[in-house]
Amino acid sequence: MDGPLKNLLVLDLTRVLVGPYCTMMLSDLGARVIKVEAPEVGDDSRNFGPFVEDYSAYFMSLNRGKESIALNLKNSDDKKIFDKILAKADILVENFKPGTLEKWGYGWKDVCEKYPKLIYASASGFGQTGPLKELPAYDMVVQGMGGLMSVTGQPNSEPTRVGTSIGDITAGLFTTIGINAALYDREKTGKGTFIDVSMLDCQIAILENAIARYLSKNEIPKPMGSRHPSIAPFEAFKTKDSHIIIAAGNDKLFEKLCNVLEMSELFSDEKFNTNSLRSKNMDELKLILENKLSSKITTDWVRLMEEERIPCGPIYNIKEAVENPQVLSRNMIVKAYHKVIGDFKLAGNPIKMSSYKDETTRGDIPDLDEHRGKILKEFS
Amino acid sequence: MDGPLKNLLVLDLTRVLVGPYCTMMLSDLGARVIKVEAPEVGDDSRNFGPFVEDYSAYFMSLNRGKESIALNLKNSDDKKIFDKILAKADILVENFKPGTLEKWGYGWKDVCEKYPKLIYASASGFGQTGPLKELPAYDMVVQGMGGLMSVTGQPNSEPTRVGTSIGDITAGLFTTIGINAALYDREKTGKGTFIDVSMLDCQIAILENAIARYLSKNEIPKPMGSRHPSIAPFEAFKTKDSHIIIAAGNDKLFEKLCNVLEMSELFSDEKFNTNSLRSKNMDELKLILENKLSSKITTDWVRLMEEERIPCGPIYNIKEAVENPQVLSRNMIVKAYHKVIGDFKLAGNPIKMSSYKDETTRGDIPDLDEHRGKILKEFS
Repeated sequence: MDGPLKNLLVLDLTRVLVGPYCTMMLSDLGARVIKVEAPEVGDDSRNFGPFVEDYSAYFMSLNRGKESIALNLKNSDDKKIFDKILAKADILVENFKPGTLEKWGYGWKDVCEKYPKLIYASASGFGQTGPLKELPAYDMVVQGMGGLMSVTGQPNSEPTRVGTSIGDITAGLFTTIGINAALYDREKTGKGTFIDVSMLDCQIAILENAIARYLSKNEIPKPMGSRHPSIAPFEAFKTKDSHIIIAAGNDKLFEKLCNVLEMSELFSDEKFNTNSLRSKNMDELKLILENKLSSKITTDWVRLMEEERIPCGPIYNIKEAVENPQVLSRNMIVKAYHKVIGDFKLAGNPIKMSSYKDETTRGDIPDLDEHRGKILKEFS
Repeated sequence: MDGPLKNLLVLDLTRVLVGPYCTMMLSDLGARVIKVEAPEVGDDSRNFGPFVEDYSAYFMSLNRGKESIALNLKNSDDKKIFDKILAKADILVENFKPGTLEKWGYGWKDVCEKYPKLIYASASGFGQTGPLKELPAYDMVVQGMGGLMSVTGQPNSEPTRVGTSIGDITAGLFTTIGINAALYDREKTGKGTFIDVSMLDCQIAILENAIARYLSKNEIPKPMGSRHPSIAPFEAFKTKDSHIIIAAGNDKLFEKLCNVLEMSELFSDEKFNTNSLRSKNMDELKLILENKLSSKITTDWVRLMEEERIPCGPIYNIKEAVENPQVLSRNMIVKAYHKVIGDFKLAGNPIKMSSYKDETTRGDIPDLDEHRGKILKEFS
């Protein structure tokens, strides 16, 4: 891949999701990624479903374009190989439990004097410091402890997780930001840095409205289904055949909405003529709107509202989402090659940069230890 | 703020969330941010609740530490001021509807020849290209069209949004990655770049398991409450007083869990002795586990499981989440000053870098046009 990070070498000690998501982005930005996996088993996610002909689609979607070598960092011969790659690496990324790499002699403090230009990024459940640093965490645990689950779901429903591992993914994104900022910094100072990202911290950083509400007003927000906590109407409504999302974020949009629905009297109604009144009386307003919206199917309403530039849309399932001509036109579904399966489709890179081509393919999907020969030869 | 981006000037034309979240991170990383707001009204989010003494906590939490100047980019006197700031800016960030800045003479193509080192980042609902580029979008619209809502919620429940504006926030994160990568690139090439991020694209990029499942197996995933689609047990369970999240991601952890629950026979049960069997028979396993878990309160179970290093945790509300000693010890709640309200608490920066101090305060919260005098003097 060509990109802003070309000519940089990433030594990738990551497994499962938070780390691999980060090094996947580094790869998409042009870096070369050498993935060090545990001998025999490899990245745990090689065993996570769904599977295609015994190969994990989960693993493949995150690790395309990386090179794989199996090394046991407790074994002295393997350590020698590792040391040779480390000596040439620009960036080390790892998501072991804090203390693991120290135990093997590769903690930040162990390596930073010898390699002062190395950027060393650690992503973990709770971070490298603090009373909980020793505890293991997966996405679900930080979605729960970070407060996000307490505001996601229907009112009074059973606990609801975000349907994607947002705890891992956001931490992967913050880690990637840290690494890129450190690369820029290194150009100025000549020095590397240690980056410590905690998945739990990242959950706090994305709480937005909910945390502003609590910290400023001592209100404890609750799940509200599809409703926005302070903008109205801004939620999903029933139509004749399914649902429509309407996000009429200000008075002007609400007026347009009333006109499209042929209910212009609503806009002057004293119960609904400001955003705060609409928020307050939203249950009543929802009944009125759904009564009207039930007369047409979603597609028809979307067309009518789009003509008036009212933010709205259908709720797509995954098939509909990835087949959306807009998504396809943006090259958001790309391909990687696997030697048994052949072409394998996966999500593209949403960072489109004018100075680099947005490739429609990614590098091949590595088998465990596939690149040993090549790597040993190069780093001898 | 000291940080890797110190000495860089960001010209911030953003409003509401996706753009302001990005420029907030740039500020947290040390950049100086000059926010250009529409005269009289300012950033729309100045009018979004919750309010503290008539000031929007929502606005304050995103815009601390930025300088504000009100400029009308259709007015020729204001354009002259804008041009002077632009001439010295390293980065321009905007989240207008595509075409808006072009109309005012400040599209990427209009400015890139004059300012070839400028990094110009545009975040929008659907991107700068494609059949839907003209349409307005808010977070809810892309959560719906991006597929995330189709996998979030209880089975057969009403549509459920993620309880935070994850459509905006992830796009803000990807934009920030793009800007930092472009800064590094500029050090090498001497050239700026145009970065085009679409909120909808970002939703596709975070679909993880769900998109891997559809693209590889043609399965259309559905909402599963708190359950993980391919790891078991990995969900929320009822206890005597509330819920506990248990993320026993492999056989070894499941064995430990069975031992803590004093149900070691479960581990050898032919229905539950592999992850794929547990996934298949999870409804039955959940009944068995909850039957046992109902005998103690969540705190007691968490303590017992933590001793065995089984990933688990409570579901915290926002108050509990921000009062967690781990979160506080990581400096994830910081302060900014507002001249009327005084100290104002907000979320910190989850990117902890060894080379820079993680400050406990942020710069002051700007009133609309507060820094006009200072800025006019400096850029004259």
